[in-house]
Amino acid sequence: MATDMLREIGEQPEALARTLGRLLPLQPELARLLRDRRHVLFAARGTSDNAAVYGRYLVEVHAGRGAALAAPSLATHYAVQRDLSDTAVISLSQSGATEEIVAVQTWAREAGAVTVAITNDPASPLAQGAHIALVTEAGPELAVPATKTYTAQLLAVAVLVDALGPAGPSLGEELARVPSEVAGLVAARHGVDDAIALLARSPHLLVSGRGVVYGTALELALKLEETCLEPVRGLSYADLRHGPIAVVDAGTTVLLVAASHGPMLDPMIELARDLTERGASVVAIGGDQRLAVAATEHLAGPESSEALAPLGLIVPGQLLVEGLARARGLDPDAPRGLSKVTQTDRS
Amino acid sequence: MATDMLREIGEQPEALARTLGRLLPLQPELARLLRDRRHVLFAARGTSDNAAVYGRYLVEVHAGRGAALAAPSLATHYAVQRDLSDTAVISLSQSGATEEIVAVQTWAREAGAVTVAITNDPASPLAQGAHIALVTEAGPELAVPATKTYTAQLLAVAVLVDALGPAGPSLGEELARVPSEVAGLVAARHGVDDAIALLARSPHLLVSGRGVVYGTALELALKLEETCLEPVRGLSYADLRHGPIAVVDAGTTVLLVAASHGPMLDPMIELARDLTERGASVVAIGGDQRLAVAATEHLAGPESSEALAPLGLIVPGQLLVEGLARARGLDPDAPRGLSKVTQTDRS
Repeated sequence: MATDMLREIGEQPEALARTLGRLLPLQPELARLLRDRRHVLFAARGTSDNAAVYGRYLVEVHAGRGAALAAPSLATHYAVQRDLSDTAVISLSQSGATEEIVAVQTWAREAGAVTVAITNDPASPLAQGAHIALVTEAGPELAVPATKTYTAQLLAVAVLVDALGPAGPSLGEELARVPSEVAGLVAARHGVDDAIALLARSPHLLVSGRGVVYGTALELALKLEETCLEPVRGLSYADLRHGPIAVVDAGTTVLLVAASHGPMLDPMIELARDLTERGASVVAIGGDQRLAVAATEHLAGPESSEALAPLGLIVPGQLLVEGLARARGLDPDAPRGLSKVTQTDRS
Repeated sequence: MATDMLREIGEQPEALARTLGRLLPLQPELARLLRDRRHVLFAARGTSDNAAVYGRYLVEVHAGRGAALAAPSLATHYAVQRDLSDTAVISLSQSGATEEIVAVQTWAREAGAVTVAITNDPASPLAQGAHIALVTEAGPELAVPATKTYTAQLLAVAVLVDALGPAGPSLGEELARVPSEVAGLVAARHGVDDAIALLARSPHLLVSGRGVVYGTALELALKLEETCLEPVRGLSYADLRHGPIAVVDAGTTVLLVAASHGPMLDPMIELARDLTERGASVVAIGGDQRLAVAATEHLAGPESSEALAPLGLIVPGQLLVEGLARARGLDPDAPRGLSKVTQTDRS
């Protein structure tokens, strides 16, 4: 049985190629609009918030500017007066219709921010209200769990941050290789079924990542939780080390995500070893051969630099989530209790 | 059996009174040092990170400046070059010896930040390396779960933010009432034993709060997890609404924290009603009579404004944690696998 979710996972290479074609030409305008903005605030909820976590690290690591996630309640409930003349506010919503994110963008613009909308709908209030809209070309998404709209958001974030780099765009060639790298990961189901079998018999799941790929861990946890209807935590490496690791035991399976290079790889390998010593099972996505050896099950990730690794790393995770839901007799396309457009407060 | 933890919970009023006496006179110097700093970054781990979440909201809501939590890895692993000449960096560590937080402070100072240390040890590297140290007067803390050092950190944060207010200090009178309000909450065990009995038979626990009291929810979840040795999630109101609420059922008990006034009270009452309609049990801490009626069990919180509510709201939570650990036959003073000084990476 082919689900919408599985089909949409497969549509990602084309969605990414179309999005790249549309957004790369906007880099000069982005660089000009955001030139004097030393601070970047991301506003998002749900899956888009996980893309924002990626953006936050990417801005700080690769663009040398300060970045943070906005608390939407500052606009919607506290009505705080702020001077945002040194700030760019990047709002992410695949529908472009999440009311509180639209409200944050309006508030930010009135406070002097330059506003950038990342959305899949050019006619949405979010796109229409921004100084510049980065419209993703994911096409219609039918399954409730976002897949291609999420990776298209990540790509939009990468194009944006690349334009802000102190030395100008530098990821260009590597960005161009993303669609084919994702295509390779969609096709490579090697290890996925073994990992699904392991997850299906695990009473407790945790997901962890660190630094630029931390957002990937949060997104994988959210997808597992909303699709497989059980509590799953996504934790940073540090938060896992500072508490929950004390309650990890043989009943726990920990999913770890890591880029194949970069400063976070060695700590993640050490974490995988510590976890298996405590009797936990580890499903590793990405990393290198050492991480594969340290883990119980391993799914290959992308070869790209850490900066772009999140675009590929989520793909084996999407395949896991889709397969695990079916293995549990659930419909990955329509999880109970969730709708496609995210709203926090009832109107 | 009196535990160290219970004794230290009871020492909070005195610890807070001493801390207030030491820190209030520093407000003019804080105001001067941080006058031109439009952005505030908090650096912390573990329990101190939950105090930082409070600080982040308090700065944004009451001081009209931008605030965020620093990612320590930017300093420790990515060695990012930044210009922090518009930023104050507030580092929190009860021991003042958490290596990565000391590293963040050193990095920030070299990047042009004004640095403020909040620590319980004036001789610690963190205190010694800061432009100004706000030394809490909690005294020695023997139990591994932090209680009086945590509330003393919250008070230091409140004194700091009060000094930054656009109209100068304005919380003064209310700050002076905090020790006696906390004393009242320590003495009032009404409802605590009923709530412990409910938690003891609940297979799944969640904790949620919103806005200025969100950090209180994170701290309560961390304490439950580290002391009672089971996974407990602390979630923002929005993150709970956007996913986990779909997996809430009769086996779940949700602890909700709320101030007795402020813009977040009505949404929390509505959340309590939604959760009990789904069959979950709700333990509410704080709020008003409407929240008490909507909840399964209710523990009274402080009467203070939302800005200072977190200093009192955690107290019934501490009593819950200490009692629940004993009810489960555990030693709240020395949870398995945790040590008093937080370190993320092994040296």
